[in-house]
Amino acid sequence: MTARHEFDFAEIGRDVLARVDALARHSDSPVHYTRTWLSPAHRAAAAQLAEWMREAGMAVRVDGAGSVIGRYEGLAPGAKALVTGSHFDSVRNGGKYDGVVGILVPLACVADLHRQDLRLPHAIEVVAFADEEGARFQTSFLASRAFLGQFDPAIRDRRDADGIGFDEAMRAAGLDPAAIAADPRDPATIAAYVEVHIEQGPVLLEAGLPLGVVTVIAGGTRHRVTVTGAAGHAGTVPMASRRDALAAAAEMILAVESRARTGGGLVGTVGVLEVREGTGNVIPGHVEFTVDIRSGDDAVREAAERDVFARFEAIAAKRGVTVATRRNHAVRATPCSPRLQELLAESMSAVGVPVRRLASGAGHDAMVMAAATEVGMLFVRCGAGGVSHNPAETVTAEDAGLAVAALGEFFRKFAA
Amino acid sequence: MTARHEFDFAEIGRDVLARVDALARHSDSPVHYTRTWLSPAHRAAAAQLAEWMREAGMAVRVDGAGSVIGRYEGLAPGAKALVTGSHFDSVRNGGKYDGVVGILVPLACVADLHRQDLRLPHAIEVVAFADEEGARFQTSFLASRAFLGQFDPAIRDRRDADGIGFDEAMRAAGLDPAAIAADPRDPATIAAYVEVHIEQGPVLLEAGLPLGVVTVIAGGTRHRVTVTGAAGHAGTVPMASRRDALAAAAEMILAVESRARTGGGLVGTVGVLEVREGTGNVIPGHVEFTVDIRSGDDAVREAAERDVFARFEAIAAKRGVTVATRRNHAVRATPCSPRLQELLAESMSAVGVPVRRLASGAGHDAMVMAAATEVGMLFVRCGAGGVSHNPAETVTAEDAGLAVAALGEFFRKFAA
Repeated sequence: MTARHEFDFAEIGRDVLARVDALARHSDSPVHYTRTWLSPAHRAAAAQLAEWMREAGMAVRVDGAGSVIGRYEGLAPGAKALVTGSHFDSVRNGGKYDGVVGILVPLACVADLHRQDLRLPHAIEVVAFADEEGARFQTSFLASRAFLGQFDPAIRDRRDADGIGFDEAMRAAGLDPAAIAADPRDPATIAAYVEVHIEQGPVLLEAGLPLGVVTVIAGGTRHRVTVTGAAGHAGTVPMASRRDALAAAAEMILAVESRARTGGGLVGTVGVLEVREGTGNVIPGHVEFTVDIRSGDDAVREAAERDVFARFEAIAAKRGVTVATRRNHAVRATPCSPRLQELLAESMSAVGVPVRRLASGAGHDAMVMAAATEVGMLFVRCGAGGVSHNPAETVTAEDAGLAVAALGEFFRKFAA
Repeated sequence: MTARHEFDFAEIGRDVLARVDALARHSDSPVHYTRTWLSPAHRAAAAQLAEWMREAGMAVRVDGAGSVIGRYEGLAPGAKALVTGSHFDSVRNGGKYDGVVGILVPLACVADLHRQDLRLPHAIEVVAFADEEGARFQTSFLASRAFLGQFDPAIRDRRDADGIGFDEAMRAAGLDPAAIAADPRDPATIAAYVEVHIEQGPVLLEAGLPLGVVTVIAGGTRHRVTVTGAAGHAGTVPMASRRDALAAAAEMILAVESRARTGGGLVGTVGVLEVREGTGNVIPGHVEFTVDIRSGDDAVREAAERDVFARFEAIAAKRGVTVATRRNHAVRATPCSPRLQELLAESMSAVGVPVRRLASGAGHDAMVMAAATEVGMLFVRCGAGGVSHNPAETVTAEDAGLAVAALGEFFRKFAA
């Protein structure tokens, strides 16, 4: 890795992808790729990752949340660590690159250092976070939060879809629920956090570029909106007498969309809509839907939210329906460190990749890690139209190889 | 009834409503009003109706579908019958006046004739149709169809929500499934069919009128619409790259609404909408919804359908999604006989009720009966904002009494 000409991007990339495939075989489902926190497949994947880390010369430990942490020592034992990694759980019926690429790319970089018996001034730690998606217990960023000693004990009361309790699931995996966040990582021992991740969107694909430097992880809010009109017979209530909750909701959906199209890195999505007791011949009286609004610029997002909800009120008033909104999730934007962005950009240039900067619309463990250290992110192009959280998700061997090359450069530049 | 001054509208109406309440106690559910075809509550209601018919001087029989038919002979035995009636099944959690008013109002008229020992030139038959809503086996107009010898034997393969087969349900109620439509009523024995029904809409209520003469029973079509776009991550796909199936559907819903607002007695409703695998943070890739379009004028309705579906195609093309529509129900409009409309109008005037003519947006047994004879309908004002198929449905005692008075006048005028 010290001389990037020494290795064949595509060959390194093919090895990364072979490991992605091998890891994907550890799935909760025989027919699709699903790996939920602490399932047998999840523990088998953890064991595989630990084995690969050891082969790459790392000392391996498993933390209280089941995350696998490999440490490649620097020149001096106990040096501050450049921490890198991502998650190895998945959404249900997900894509096998999501998260996993951010573990296997740095693993390949460390393996290269190890082959050459090279040490850097800082240690490198590759963290395979055990749970980021939270599909099993509806926990987001569980593992990175536990890594930093942040854990909400109320989560221990939850049960999974099969009725298995949180504590019971931990004990079955040989973990102590009381100790999940008992060994918080001291931020003073971390030099920085950098995360490689599949973009999960079409920006790099549409730009024809393999890699991108993330400028900011967008903040966002999620809302539950309830529209109440008056149910009625689809044949007998004249149009002028209707208070149709679905027609009102339709207008609101288009209001979200048109406001989100005004720029500022805004995106707005209505992903769930339910007509309560809907029947083909009944005018909907009650509709609920979600609104998800994100931007890398919190002020832009907040202004959009104000506009959208004012518009909802106006639509409701005009139509004689009522609208109620409840915010049930809010995250502020997380800027990536300008220094790390610059180092990542220089590293990409050094391996011949044009530099493209872009915001991350999705949340990542880096958002949590930002509480402890400066963070940076390197995106890898997402094939298949930019589809992610889906079996169609793809990364090419060449792009994976370029990610290994660029991250290897970054390790070196970070040291310098 | 021969002299309308002899009876107190409100008192007669209160008696009708007391019977509505008594009949509503025969419900499948202890907490709400639901009476499905051939349930124990349904058979108990049938027995009660038969008892009241006998008390009113009628000969009673139960037909192959479980309908209860009371006949009050005319001056000459075997005379043609003026048939009147409606259904005594209900939708789930329905309103207790729906259908039942159309049995109990003519029953009161016949009881009045019987009290005075009066015979008319024609016989009067009050038919309590056993199944119109079809909530149990998804059968519409089952009983009126069977009454005329129309029955689709394929229905016998169906099962209800509890897994009970159609034939099994019939046998449990003491009926022979093979004989459900074995004794078709000869149209030559029917002089006309007239049906009293709660309006199930707000037109009379908004006009401040107790009764209305139906001009036409609207025709209508129902369609299932599928919109296919591309699912994607709510945070990572820029607005310009989206093919959001729900946003497209929202625009289509508003297209249905705006076209239906152009008049011609049109109504258009999207009553069901489902986002397949919808999640708050995923752009919807697949949405299905229903479209129900009705009008008393078939040409107006067909033109509206053409326009709406052309608009759907244009919206889909503009947004890069696909749309598929499937028609799964179509009924042409059923005009009410001008002669019966005129007689009903004169009867209303005779009891001092201003004449309002209106279309019926809902389907009724009269649509089926129109295959055998001329039909007429008398609507009774629906309280509570015009709500029907709902526990809030109401009829006042005075309106019920006026309906008895007007129908009694109609019986006399029809004879003349």
